[in-house]
Amino acid sequence: MDQVQHNHANPQADLFIKMVIQAWDTQNDRLDKLIGQLPEERLYAQTAPGKNRGYYLLGHLVAISDAMIPLLGLGEKFHPELEAIFVSKPDNTNIISPSIDDLKKYWKEIISKLSHHFKLMSSDDWFSRHNAVSPEDFAREPFRNKLNIIINRTNHQSYHLGQMIYLK
Amino acid sequence: MDQVQHNHANPQADLFIKMVIQAWDTQNDRLDKLIGQLPEERLYAQTAPGKNRGYYLLGHLVAISDAMIPLLGLGEKFHPELEAIFVSKPDNTNIISPSIDDLKKYWKEIISKLSHHFKLMSSDDWFSRHNAVSPEDFAREPFRNKLNIIINRTNHQSYHLGQMIYLK
Repeated sequence: MDQVQHNHANPQADLFIKMVIQAWDTQNDRLDKLIGQLPEERLYAQTAPGKNRGYYLLGHLVAISDAMIPLLGLGEKFHPELEAIFVSKPDNTNIISPSIDDLKKYWKEIISKLSHHFKLMSSDDWFSRHNAVSPEDFAREPFRNKLNIIINRTNHQSYHLGQMIYLK
Repeated sequence: MDQVQHNHANPQADLFIKMVIQAWDTQNDRLDKLIGQLPEERLYAQTAPGKNRGYYLLGHLVAISDAMIPLLGLGEKFHPELEAIFVSKPDNTNIISPSIDDLKKYWKEIISKLSHHFKLMSSDDWFSRHNAVSPEDFAREPFRNKLNIIINRTNHQSYHLGQMIYLK
């Protein structure tokens, strides 16, 4: 898709979409940098006594980003098996697989797919309904659109990044 | 100001301003709830061994929110003295003043002032330059607008809220 498909009657929308994606990219860059710096044994450590391990939070962020793919109508999850380990269950220090290297690889794969699609989306796409809201609810609550997913997931990632930074 | 001053040629703009403010309000509500639940001695504790106290992070968030008032062109800071304690210097466990009750009071006062002004701002106001960017830089980088301050500060608050939650 090219620029022609964007809604050029509304330059503020293009600007706003850029702002939201920029904030998302910033958080991703910070997480990338952090997991690139931390030795594996630090990531397997708890972020604070009795709190989630860095490993769990990394897996959690990978799983939540993976779930954005179907939520935004961009296809299927790459790694549906992650949800049971890193989302629906709390951290369990016996779990050390998938490996940290695998999680990092998954992360890059998912973020790269999302970024690729984001470049192709028009402002009308962004303001359309995401897949966890019904057409009826969306008619009443038009803010439950795809762009709002990015705003919320960016904040979610900041929240956990604030915890993972304690491993430094 | 009333609805007439909003740009009604651009209903998407009203919608995304609403999305950004909603995310900001959500983080504020979470912080409100957390500081309402934590006993004072917990807030004076470190969020993790050797890490910032809840008290410092609360003061930090109050100071950063207070600084949004001039940044958005809405007036002067209520408490300029907070910056030296909670922003430009790291946490120092000898510091226990202003009191937590005072910080909570300042917080409510600042958030209430911001909310009041946000309701009066038109979409053109939101997409105008904030006061930490020059007109020249803004011409090149129009995303450095007032609405972007809210997006960034919401993420900043999520980050520290992820740390403060460790006090529970």
